[in-house]
Amino acid sequence: MLSMYNIIDKTKHTERLSIQEVSYLVKGYVDGTIPDYQMSAWLMAVCLNGLSKEETFYLTDCMKRSGEVLSWESVEGITADKHSTGGVGDKTTLIVAPIVASCGVKMPKMSGRGLGHTGGTIDKLESIPNFNVELSHTDFIKTINEVGCAIVSQSGNLTPADKKIYALRDVTATVDSIPLISSSIMSKKLALNSDCIVLDVKCGSGAFMKDIADATTLANLMVDIGKFYNKRCTALITDMNAPLGYNVGNSLEVIEAIETLKGNTRGNLLDLCVELSTEIVSTALNTDYVTVKDKVLDAISSGKALETFSKMIEYQGGNAKIVDDYSIFDVPRYSYEVKSKVSGYIQSIDSQEVGIASLNLGAGRHTKSDSIDYSAGIVFNHQLGDSISIGDTIATLYSSKVTDPSQVEDSLLKAITINAQKPIIKDIVISCIN
Amino acid sequence: MLSMYNIIDKTKHTERLSIQEVSYLVKGYVDGTIPDYQMSAWLMAVCLNGLSKEETFYLTDCMKRSGEVLSWESVEGITADKHSTGGVGDKTTLIVAPIVASCGVKMPKMSGRGLGHTGGTIDKLESIPNFNVELSHTDFIKTINEVGCAIVSQSGNLTPADKKIYALRDVTATVDSIPLISSSIMSKKLALNSDCIVLDVKCGSGAFMKDIADATTLANLMVDIGKFYNKRCTALITDMNAPLGYNVGNSLEVIEAIETLKGNTRGNLLDLCVELSTEIVSTALNTDYVTVKDKVLDAISSGKALETFSKMIEYQGGNAKIVDDYSIFDVPRYSYEVKSKVSGYIQSIDSQEVGIASLNLGAGRHTKSDSIDYSAGIVFNHQLGDSISIGDTIATLYSSKVTDPSQVEDSLLKAITINAQKPIIKDIVISCIN
Repeated sequence: MLSMYNIIDKTKHTERLSIQEVSYLVKGYVDGTIPDYQMSAWLMAVCLNGLSKEETFYLTDCMKRSGEVLSWESVEGITADKHSTGGVGDKTTLIVAPIVASCGVKMPKMSGRGLGHTGGTIDKLESIPNFNVELSHTDFIKTINEVGCAIVSQSGNLTPADKKIYALRDVTATVDSIPLISSSIMSKKLALNSDCIVLDVKCGSGAFMKDIADATTLANLMVDIGKFYNKRCTALITDMNAPLGYNVGNSLEVIEAIETLKGNTRGNLLDLCVELSTEIVSTALNTDYVTVKDKVLDAISSGKALETFSKMIEYQGGNAKIVDDYSIFDVPRYSYEVKSKVSGYIQSIDSQEVGIASLNLGAGRHTKSDSIDYSAGIVFNHQLGDSISIGDTIATLYSSKVTDPSQVEDSLLKAITINAQKPIIKDIVISCIN
Repeated sequence: MLSMYNIIDKTKHTERLSIQEVSYLVKGYVDGTIPDYQMSAWLMAVCLNGLSKEETFYLTDCMKRSGEVLSWESVEGITADKHSTGGVGDKTTLIVAPIVASCGVKMPKMSGRGLGHTGGTIDKLESIPNFNVELSHTDFIKTINEVGCAIVSQSGNLTPADKKIYALRDVTATVDSIPLISSSIMSKKLALNSDCIVLDVKCGSGAFMKDIADATTLANLMVDIGKFYNKRCTALITDMNAPLGYNVGNSLEVIEAIETLKGNTRGNLLDLCVELSTEIVSTALNTDYVTVKDKVLDAISSGKALETFSKMIEYQGGNAKIVDDYSIFDVPRYSYEVKSKVSGYIQSIDSQEVGIASLNLGAGRHTKSDSIDYSAGIVFNHQLGDSISIGDTIATLYSSKVTDPSQVEDSLLKAITINAQKPIIKDIVISCIN
């Protein structure tokens, strides 16, 4: 007879669970017959003893099946989805979705809101006046078919098991387990059910995975799960030792995304968007990397991707004029220029600290019920490797809520390491797993 | 700032907790500010990562301090306590307490009731008509001072933290952890607060500790805890590959205890009682083993120990005539002789299976609210190493509830392994830790 006690005991002794046992555990936890205190004991046993690949597959599938599984039958063509393991200044979805759509791959994207020091794509889009992140199913499908992409807020009853388990992990120090992270992410991706999934696994001081070995293990496991459930799935392991791009904050990030789609930016953000878009399109259409990369670069230089973004804003009810007129965004009432107190080269920028500074300027939420100052945030004048002199402006702080933005100056300066020696800047993409 | 999340995370990463952290965790769990689901995650981390000796000391002390700590100031002389890690047919307390008292060491003993396949000393004593296991504090002290020993039911508010934590461990597969077992046992012993503590750590197929290495680790840790808190503390590691003695069941075990005090028995039970008594008296009085062993043997042969037992029954309201007239006990209404189906030597007797058979005859409780048939149980005609022929009676089953005791015959026969070769019978005491 199946029993949660025996399941805990098995994982504790590194004995393998059957698919029936994993299913019993997920169903029992969702329906409340398995109490939190048994689930958390099991989760801790998983953190310390791991799960086999098969057990992780079962767990992912059971969490996927705990709720609705979407269908894209009424979308013409191949659908693709991307996932990023979270970062500060990460506005890639805003750039990649229109590029990929311009290259003929459909991107029905569901994104989340930000909490704490990381921003959310949905919050960024809501800085565009009237932008609607809650399309009806009909309008969502229509936008995808006619524009090629749409970005909406996660809705419906997707993976309730993952939601409930994640909430428990969050308060029991059982988040950092590779099988649990993999099954959580992949259960959502499988429930969203696009044909192709490209994962951006961040690695470095600012990321959840601090070293390449762990990031590679996580990426491999997620790709294996995707493939096992018949998805075209690849992962990029990308460097996260600084925020992505120059801007952090909601409207500031949308502006940087537009500038990137206009071909006006250079640096880690552009590089990552080009690589991710190329990976998605070549995986989705099964076309060689070089050909696709040309198409991706052309989507930017021709203005097609920008046009797609503008059309998406229009279809989602937003004011598409913002693409050419940034003054339509809320204008920040207060600003403050942060000057360097030393000379040298920028070695690293602690993105978590930058995220916290931005949060304290009003760009994020400390708790779920907080309201956001869309105009708030930070614009850097420099990236890693740039040389800087005493008195140079490193960054400008913006806020409409915090009358004296200089109060985060110290923490921002602490986040930036400046040394005499010019650092070696790594490519943003460390490796590709497929 | 102290937080349960950080405490879980530290133990998960094998970082050491401070005494403040351990105290926060125990107090918070008892007062309900730390929820079960966080405690069970921590307990699982302890099961898999262990605790340092210092952390185990802190945990034991905090659990001890969670409730009342007894005082024996009004008892004249040295007080001693014993603990056994549980066994089937273990009636040693009934024999050791009067022997030790006869040798001049006071034994204020608190014992528990049985649940499942293991019996409880309190249930055994309650098979004696009118025996009172709930003495007032004054009567308890008076009995100890005038008789030398008294055995009562655990009462008062001793180690509530251990009670609450144990209940959670029981349903989250976090029982089998040496630091958790040690701190649970020793917190109770320290709250009981006798001057001297002797531990009987069972080892073997029928015990919680299956091998000598684990039993030794457990015994060493418990002795270290006791000594750290200024107790004279030693442990015997004893063999548990068969039930202790010949009788299993409540009045049947009291009868065997009386027979042992009369000097009428031989075998593992007598040997263990002599060793435990010698250890307790020599530890308590700091006297050499050989001298004390003579005193112990004399306490039996002179009848002094039996007289002490009889006097204790009297002081505790029971009918002391049972010492000479076993017909005063409830007489079982049904009995059945189990015959051997093979010839050979008895190699092993699975004590857990014997305990379950006895439970099913009515001698124990399946749930806390069950009532007990004091007359029920099993009397073996043989012990390990005895030769036996087909058709010989191995054991007799007794019950007043189960009209056909033969229904446990099969499970009893399965518990007994009989082989052609005569086994080597080990001494009951494997080693002594002090």
